[in-house]
Amino acid sequence: MQIEVFPTLGGVPDEAINDKVVIVVDVLRTGTTLAVALACGCLDIIPVLSPEEAIEMKGRLGDERVLLGGERNGLKIPGFDLGNSPLEYQRTGMEHKRLIFTSTNGTRALRRASGAKKVVVAALVNAPAVAQAVAAMEGDVSIICAGEREHLSIEDFWAAGFLVRELLKYNDFSLRDGALVARDYQAYRTDPQEVVLEGFQARQLMEQGFGEDIKFCIQIGIIGLVPLYSGGVIRKL
Amino acid sequence: MQIEVFPTLGGVPDEAINDKVVIVVDVLRTGTTLAVALACGCLDIIPVLSPEEAIEMKGRLGDERVLLGGERNGLKIPGFDLGNSPLEYQRTGMEHKRLIFTSTNGTRALRRASGAKKVVVAALVNAPAVAQAVAAMEGDVSIICAGEREHLSIEDFWAAGFLVRELLKYNDFSLRDGALVARDYQAYRTDPQEVVLEGFQARQLMEQGFGEDIKFCIQIGIIGLVPLYSGGVIRKL
Repeated sequence: MQIEVFPTLGGVPDEAINDKVVIVVDVLRTGTTLAVALACGCLDIIPVLSPEEAIEMKGRLGDERVLLGGERNGLKIPGFDLGNSPLEYQRTGMEHKRLIFTSTNGTRALRRASGAKKVVVAALVNAPAVAQAVAAMEGDVSIICAGEREHLSIEDFWAAGFLVRELLKYNDFSLRDGALVARDYQAYRTDPQEVVLEGFQARQLMEQGFGEDIKFCIQIGIIGLVPLYSGGVIRKL
Repeated sequence: MQIEVFPTLGGVPDEAINDKVVIVVDVLRTGTTLAVALACGCLDIIPVLSPEEAIEMKGRLGDERVLLGGERNGLKIPGFDLGNSPLEYQRTGMEHKRLIFTSTNGTRALRRASGAKKVVVAALVNAPAVAQAVAAMEGDVSIICAGEREHLSIEDFWAAGFLVRELLKYNDFSLRDGALVARDYQAYRTDPQEVVLEGFQARQLMEQGFGEDIKFCIQIGIIGLVPLYSGGVIRKL
């Protein structure tokens, strides 16, 4: 069994999706937000590519439990119930709610991964749980970093390295070059806070006043839950 | 001025090419081979995407000085004069020759980069010279790793980190996330031979009997020459 890490979504080949277990990593903030929503009682999450698609789907579902969540350029979308701040989801009653969600990078990566044997969503808050679950799925693993548009995101790549190291605790995976680099980079830069704050997305979130979100997102392993994306819907594994 | 590193060719956005100084990195082996060819007296090199395009272009040029070089899956292409072994180019008389060249990853990356303000080709053998020349070009720098199909190549990413560190000796560039990661990875893994031999491409080349090529390709700075790709042709800067 093999692990490969794709530092950006662009150019991920079909062979890395088909018959593979795919981990989509999005630390700031979609992966964190979705884990929090499920941990706070949200029944299911439908990731969509655009605000228009979200609104259209809400109309089609005609379900009063549905909330619209997500961001564009880090900010809540006009007319939506929630943005992409995990703290906001913690404060909001998510019990028995259903969520339709769109974000700039995370939901695009999820959609790209559909067609894989299994797709799970990871952030630092649930990385240990994700690694444990994925190791039990017994198959080649593709870790896809959501990134920031076509750019590598330092926090996603660091988290990918963390996942590689965790996965190696359970199985004797072979590592392709992307996984080798991510593992070593993560081993070298041991302080996630220091690393994450160097990155483009963290600097942007700080400017937008989301500093508390960043602090929340770097708490490794505080959520023991694995979001599984299957049939177009994300639910607790 | 800014530096960004793209770990793979897939998904490199137009904004990272247009008006940028682009360094295409291909350590094993295209970047090395092209530097050697020029250092051995080759007049110019035309990179093309396919063997068919190479043969067609040779016919069109009708120039007896033209040699066909390149590889598919690491091996010399049937009917071609040369493969993609830098040692082969060193042995062959390249004085006053012209080269039409195609390789699986390197020439694809070069073609992608056309349209940039400047495009140079880098390998470890000429990385210090490339960094010095690029720093003098005064502009944002995109370092594009040729990689191995859609996968990151450990040796290209390491070389990208080396180039970032070299560039910072000359100018006070700001670093996007890809450049931050490459710089730190390279600083952590100090021995290029150890790193390169872990990678997929080196293992494949070893199996194909190209171990001597790898030893040649990791000699940092033995060639003080910068291949510039302009108007579809590569010449010495």
